[in-house]
Amino acid sequence: MKFTIQAVDSLCLARAGQFETDHGVVETPIFMPVGTIGTVKTLSPHDLKENGAQIILCNTYHLYLKPGLEILKAAGGIHKFNSWKGPVLTDSGGFQIYSLNELRRLNNEGVEFKSHWDGSTHFLTPEKVVDIQRIIGSDIMMVLDQCIANPSDRITVEEALQRTIEWAKRSRNYFTQTYPLYGFRQFQFGIIQGGIYPDLRRRSIEELLEIDFEGLAIGGLAVGEEADIRNEITQICTEILPVEKPRYLMGVGTPVDIIEAVERGVDMFDCVIPTRNARNGTVFTMHGKVVIRNAQYKKDLRPIDETCSCYACSNFSRAYIRHLFNVNEVLGLRLATIHNIHFYLKLMSQIREAILKDKFIQWKKDFLSNFNNSI
Amino acid sequence: MKFTIQAVDSLCLARAGQFETDHGVVETPIFMPVGTIGTVKTLSPHDLKENGAQIILCNTYHLYLKPGLEILKAAGGIHKFNSWKGPVLTDSGGFQIYSLNELRRLNNEGVEFKSHWDGSTHFLTPEKVVDIQRIIGSDIMMVLDQCIANPSDRITVEEALQRTIEWAKRSRNYFTQTYPLYGFRQFQFGIIQGGIYPDLRRRSIEELLEIDFEGLAIGGLAVGEEADIRNEITQICTEILPVEKPRYLMGVGTPVDIIEAVERGVDMFDCVIPTRNARNGTVFTMHGKVVIRNAQYKKDLRPIDETCSCYACSNFSRAYIRHLFNVNEVLGLRLATIHNIHFYLKLMSQIREAILKDKFIQWKKDFLSNFNNSI
Repeated sequence: MKFTIQAVDSLCLARAGQFETDHGVVETPIFMPVGTIGTVKTLSPHDLKENGAQIILCNTYHLYLKPGLEILKAAGGIHKFNSWKGPVLTDSGGFQIYSLNELRRLNNEGVEFKSHWDGSTHFLTPEKVVDIQRIIGSDIMMVLDQCIANPSDRITVEEALQRTIEWAKRSRNYFTQTYPLYGFRQFQFGIIQGGIYPDLRRRSIEELLEIDFEGLAIGGLAVGEEADIRNEITQICTEILPVEKPRYLMGVGTPVDIIEAVERGVDMFDCVIPTRNARNGTVFTMHGKVVIRNAQYKKDLRPIDETCSCYACSNFSRAYIRHLFNVNEVLGLRLATIHNIHFYLKLMSQIREAILKDKFIQWKKDFLSNFNNSI
Repeated sequence: MKFTIQAVDSLCLARAGQFETDHGVVETPIFMPVGTIGTVKTLSPHDLKENGAQIILCNTYHLYLKPGLEILKAAGGIHKFNSWKGPVLTDSGGFQIYSLNELRRLNNEGVEFKSHWDGSTHFLTPEKVVDIQRIIGSDIMMVLDQCIANPSDRITVEEALQRTIEWAKRSRNYFTQTYPLYGFRQFQFGIIQGGIYPDLRRRSIEELLEIDFEGLAIGGLAVGEEADIRNEITQICTEILPVEKPRYLMGVGTPVDIIEAVERGVDMFDCVIPTRNARNGTVFTMHGKVVIRNAQYKKDLRPIDETCSCYACSNFSRAYIRHLFNVNEVLGLRLATIHNIHFYLKLMSQIREAILKDKFIQWKKDFLSNFNNSI
């Protein structure tokens, strides 16, 4: 995968770059909206494009269960199925299986889990996860890893790490022996584990670097630890990661989390926060969060954010969007989601702009002085 | 209201025309998508415009309860509130109150009903309904009427009719004594009642014609009677209605119902069928209905309708839309609604085209030979 670094901030590790896929170029740092079951909830591909999405994330676990591989294969892969023409990254299912704790059994060969839809039993191996992602046809696939909660005791973390590394080797090995099904290239990222133990994180990276993945992801964060620990572990990783490969911090995060990680040299992010919060009636503004369902917005005729140019802010008041939530109209969910995705992607583009101008630290200070740190 | 008839079919009563409002010209025959609580469920104003909507209907009863008059007034009326820039017709609430049978009490003064939201009691009079619609700021308002089920015994119908006529006089009287609040014109339509009794329908029209409404609606149909009776009653009305005023058949209907009524000289329609059916996973095609949830569409990679150019048909397969319904993604509701609204409005535009070419009867024959009459 061609990844070009265009600028590195002189005061921190923040960097701006771009990588190329057969479905288009992605400018980093980037946020990937989460399209769990093939669709970013409430949005159409047109909405995504119009609000600046360059790449979306889909969940292998969910797509594997529904619509299932037979339909995805018949459709010719995810891009033809969901009509999103840009790049797609798929996770490996590891995180979903981790969060299904009670529905899974794990051994060195792979992981057995029960479908949350119908209780049916499935067994995934690192190799099968590659096959599944070949059939989904994502531009970037993730290896199967074992994700565990933070904090966990050192022995548990070490065990999970060892298994994750073994699985990474098997994943890459199998990846190099198989081919894309739909005529465009697919890339594969490895996943760093090691919990909150700096030496285990370092060992994880050393071992992964012996395998030549196209990019590396920091996994096993945003799973229970405090923000300062997350930032510390992130920095421990990025300090020794090779500069020439994209770095992806999985499942992160709030605007502030993302800014902190960019400062530490992370290039890629995904998180359900903007979309899930939107559906709960919480929207982001340059001055912090607004809980649009609240009675205080009943007659508030201002847009969600007066500085925002999204479709929701260009056409509708807080009072109207609150009304939509109040009477359970799904347009409310969509308008709030449009706004939050627009907010996140504008944030990323401002971050990128600041790095390109070598003004990231100043930009961060200005942004945070407006933005409510409690978010 | 300026209403121009552009063509009358030589073989039937079908006519093509246009009427002018301060929010734009409407070409007839027209179908008005139903935006119950200020929004056509699942669609944005942009979706409506893109799919050919010229005028929408909103429900006075619903808007009166939520968001309520205070907010609508503060917003400057419905157009500023919901951002739909085209004409809006509001019903009077009569039909909703009729369907709340157990929650209402009626006398000559007006009607008392209980809110379906919170059980609070409200009393509406013909005058108050004008006031409410002044505050909503619809381009066309309807008078308060008493709608009853079909069939009802003659005495009940006659009583309801008498009350409806008294209320129509009071409504118009009050309308002429009050003024629009937002600087654009509002028009008022009367409503014909009389159940399935031809002589009562005729009496209703005669009495209404003594009041100078801008348009006349046929109410009290599509409330339980068979289609042939509805068509017969419609024709009894249109045969004696003045040609120079728009005629609106309230709450109708299926594509076939609409075509039959156009043939009998009706100009305007509204119905929840395209939107409600869409949300239940039923979509219209030129070859009849498709229940998109059905397992038979699991791997069907064709669009809903190969002859359709809507956003849903241009970008997505039946298999994908079925998947969205199957995993409860609201994008599915929106895509199905976009398609059905597009279908209805394209149908109206084909009807209009056929009338303008004096080929309506032939067009109808061709359309029905494709379309499944069971719809």
